[in-house]
Amino acid sequence: MSDRISDPPFEAAASRFGAAGAAFEAQLETRLGELLERYLASPLVHPPHDAEAWAQHFTRAHLPETPAGLDDYLEALRANVIEPSTHVGSPRFLGHMTSELPSFLRPLAKLVTALNQNPVKVETANTVTPLERQTLAVMHRLIYGRNDAFYAARIQDPAQTLGLVTGGGTVANLSALWIARNNRLGPRNGFAGVREEGLPAALNQYGFEGAVVVGSALMHYSLDKSADVLGLGRRGLIKVPVDAQHRIDLEILRKTLDELKARRRCVLALVGIAGSTDSGSVDPLPELADLATEHGAHFHVDAAWGGAALCSDTHRKQLAGIERADSVTVDGHKQFYCPMGLGLLLLREPGAAASIASQAEYIIRAGSSDLGRRSLEGSRPAAVLYLHAILSLLGREGLGALIDRTYANARAFAARIEARPEFELLYPPRLNILLYRYVPKVYRSHARPLSPEATRAVSGFNLNLQETQRREGRTFVSRTSLDPARFGGGEAVLALRAVIANPLTQPADLDAVLEDQMRIGAALERA
Amino acid sequence: MSDRISDPPFEAAASRFGAAGAAFEAQLETRLGELLERYLASPLVHPPHDAEAWAQHFTRAHLPETPAGLDDYLEALRANVIEPSTHVGSPRFLGHMTSELPSFLRPLAKLVTALNQNPVKVETANTVTPLERQTLAVMHRLIYGRNDAFYAARIQDPAQTLGLVTGGGTVANLSALWIARNNRLGPRNGFAGVREEGLPAALNQYGFEGAVVVGSALMHYSLDKSADVLGLGRRGLIKVPVDAQHRIDLEILRKTLDELKARRRCVLALVGIAGSTDSGSVDPLPELADLATEHGAHFHVDAAWGGAALCSDTHRKQLAGIERADSVTVDGHKQFYCPMGLGLLLLREPGAAASIASQAEYIIRAGSSDLGRRSLEGSRPAAVLYLHAILSLLGREGLGALIDRTYANARAFAARIEARPEFELLYPPRLNILLYRYVPKVYRSHARPLSPEATRAVSGFNLNLQETQRREGRTFVSRTSLDPARFGGGEAVLALRAVIANPLTQPADLDAVLEDQMRIGAALERA
Repeated sequence: MSDRISDPPFEAAASRFGAAGAAFEAQLETRLGELLERYLASPLVHPPHDAEAWAQHFTRAHLPETPAGLDDYLEALRANVIEPSTHVGSPRFLGHMTSELPSFLRPLAKLVTALNQNPVKVETANTVTPLERQTLAVMHRLIYGRNDAFYAARIQDPAQTLGLVTGGGTVANLSALWIARNNRLGPRNGFAGVREEGLPAALNQYGFEGAVVVGSALMHYSLDKSADVLGLGRRGLIKVPVDAQHRIDLEILRKTLDELKARRRCVLALVGIAGSTDSGSVDPLPELADLATEHGAHFHVDAAWGGAALCSDTHRKQLAGIERADSVTVDGHKQFYCPMGLGLLLLREPGAAASIASQAEYIIRAGSSDLGRRSLEGSRPAAVLYLHAILSLLGREGLGALIDRTYANARAFAARIEARPEFELLYPPRLNILLYRYVPKVYRSHARPLSPEATRAVSGFNLNLQETQRREGRTFVSRTSLDPARFGGGEAVLALRAVIANPLTQPADLDAVLEDQMRIGAALERA
Repeated sequence: MSDRISDPPFEAAASRFGAAGAAFEAQLETRLGELLERYLASPLVHPPHDAEAWAQHFTRAHLPETPAGLDDYLEALRANVIEPSTHVGSPRFLGHMTSELPSFLRPLAKLVTALNQNPVKVETANTVTPLERQTLAVMHRLIYGRNDAFYAARIQDPAQTLGLVTGGGTVANLSALWIARNNRLGPRNGFAGVREEGLPAALNQYGFEGAVVVGSALMHYSLDKSADVLGLGRRGLIKVPVDAQHRIDLEILRKTLDELKARRRCVLALVGIAGSTDSGSVDPLPELADLATEHGAHFHVDAAWGGAALCSDTHRKQLAGIERADSVTVDGHKQFYCPMGLGLLLLREPGAAASIASQAEYIIRAGSSDLGRRSLEGSRPAAVLYLHAILSLLGREGLGALIDRTYANARAFAARIEARPEFELLYPPRLNILLYRYVPKVYRSHARPLSPEATRAVSGFNLNLQETQRREGRTFVSRTSLDPARFGGGEAVLALRAVIANPLTQPADLDAVLEDQMRIGAALERA
């Protein structure tokens, strides 16, 4: 290679690596910093937005032959990506499960990228592996509260799995059901188990007509996907209606479970929701735990959203019973203020994940500490460094205080809605999500529930309002649709959905969102 | 809230967000920068490493009650995470599929974290959504090379899916088989398809005794996991032996396929490997494409490693036939030099992913551009910004030149091995992975193949050598184990495995790795 002739394309590319790339890196850093500062300073959620016009900037499917210069690259990034981008950390973006994040995560992102550790195996994550195991133990303790001796014996024992770090809640939920399926239909009497033999053979071996997962109609759609992926079929996800408080209807659930038993269906798992995505409702976890025990089903709690309430002295009681779950999903990128995407699955029994174990010779060897031995994902980022930083630099007290503030803000928002005749509160905040709608003047005096015609008209109005608000980009709430049978007398009720996730949201921001909607609503009523 | 009494824990936590957190952020940035600079300057892969001693720094399962100060946090990070961490971008770390990355990715990591876009839905990724679609189209074109009109009609059409961005190759491979399964066993004659009805009912409906995926014994272990997760069972992944070049044995494959047909097994997919993880071998893709067509199977190519060769004028011919694949996995975090973790699945037919589609009312609505409609993962990071930057700032020419350099380095490394009597080349580099072993003096004159006893002894010696090298931390190669039946006369052959992925590796680094092994080998021979 010392005799290699000159290779200009290689020299050009290599000049963007390592020390040779330092000057380019520094320029990019400075100029991106300026762009970001301007972006973050804007009071808007985003500039008025025409999605079709935007997409026109991204219609050329050409891989550039030669490298772009810094100016051209940055200009394209500024005009097409950064400036028009939705500011999901805006205090007036009350529509999705995003928030302003601690600013210390940004230098940490550089660290994570520079170290580029891969926790799939110890050889590429020799320090991140024990850090990840420790962080999982801390989160396990937050849920299950076992004693020092329990953790001391398990925290760094590669044979034990206190939990998994995943790319998000979907993979955490899928992993939970995968573990449940593989444990329930495991090896016996010479049968090698569902992991080896597959689902049809396993059901046959165990004498079942089918296998299902049961939870409420408000289960996150990741569970539909999981039922599909795992071979149960989406119809194998049994959705029990909710009561008026959006909690699973226990009477119907009991009947459903008995009926499934009579029909020789194997209930692999019962799912409890601790913070539904639709409305933040929390299922009756202790009763679900009892029923899971009674039916020999794995009890999984999807606390992707609500899990952070465990940090709050005031609100953790809302999650009572979660410590009886066999597995719990919690999202780091939601109310633990980590960047996208970081999910966690915590396992009550540290041996439960043995049923999904893999090995491969060049990697994740049997007996090693390699975290990839028991996980769905393979190579993945050292995202646990963000969660570790959050836990260290905010502390339980700080996390609890942030949660308490967002929950208080949600109650303040609900009070403002109830104080204004333009709005009707449809679901008060149990955690920090609430549902409401704008009611055009002509319907304000109508008796509740509204007639089907009025429901349809009001839903159409709110759809229009939400889409206008979204397009204008000053403020944002999302929308959802309530079960027609349960809540709308056969008609879908369109609800405006506010997620008060940002602890920096101020009273003035709450007012601004409602005033924006009142302005739009009034204009639509005049139109 | 204006009347809220003082709340010191909230004020403390909030002071680490947004503008209030700027001073803390700046301090962290400066001090992490210093730590990183020192770390990256070290010529070692890592300091001499005692894994058990390390893990002792991570044995307390305590969530801190109050926030740590900057000094304490940084000191823990320095001592326990950064300084002892494996430098996976070291030019002498030749053991895994990591490399030094372009330094411009670090400021971009700050941007990705600050924007915190979530491509699951347009409302949280209004500019990243069309950028991701465009980037997928560029990668689709690199593989399939369709014309401008093809892409113009599809690049921003939400009904079309040119590919998926995933957290890594595992989810990409799983998604490919999920799509293959759902398409092959789809709805017909009133049967709602495997997605709705589940695998047992689908096999019954279609009259199959089972469903399998077929590929070579060198398939990545993510395919074993996929077969398990999808309900096929790990035995449903049929592993055909490889020939002397580590390519699937086509004669055995043909027989296997005929036999599966006779046994009424549905071959959901045939998998071709374009760069095996073990040795970089490439399967005969055109012949596999023919067989897949003949048997009505989905043809999936796992090019997680080798896909980047498509950027090289010299080496892209090694992947001829890939354009006939129904789906192709390519990893961004491998030879596209993106940070962990970024996988891609490209789909030849943009309608193929309809069989895995989801929807949910509060999110990913039917008819929307939401990328979460057809993906396994839900919330996830805007990692596509890294790939977009790589394609823009290196260009095809730059990427090709980097690939060419690593392939040339691999050949140079093989030549050095062949020139030294201490080593035996076991698998020459087809791409940029090669296998070899150290041969203790006493065995150098033995005829090949070695006797079973000699094979066992030499394998044990190399295990010891590799573990010593790893512990010392000066240089690194990994190891794997060759099929005993095919390569070792019934004994497992332990092979040292070099992955020459880092384009910054110099001739002196290649020499240093071999000299390190010769030093250790000689010491072990004396012991």
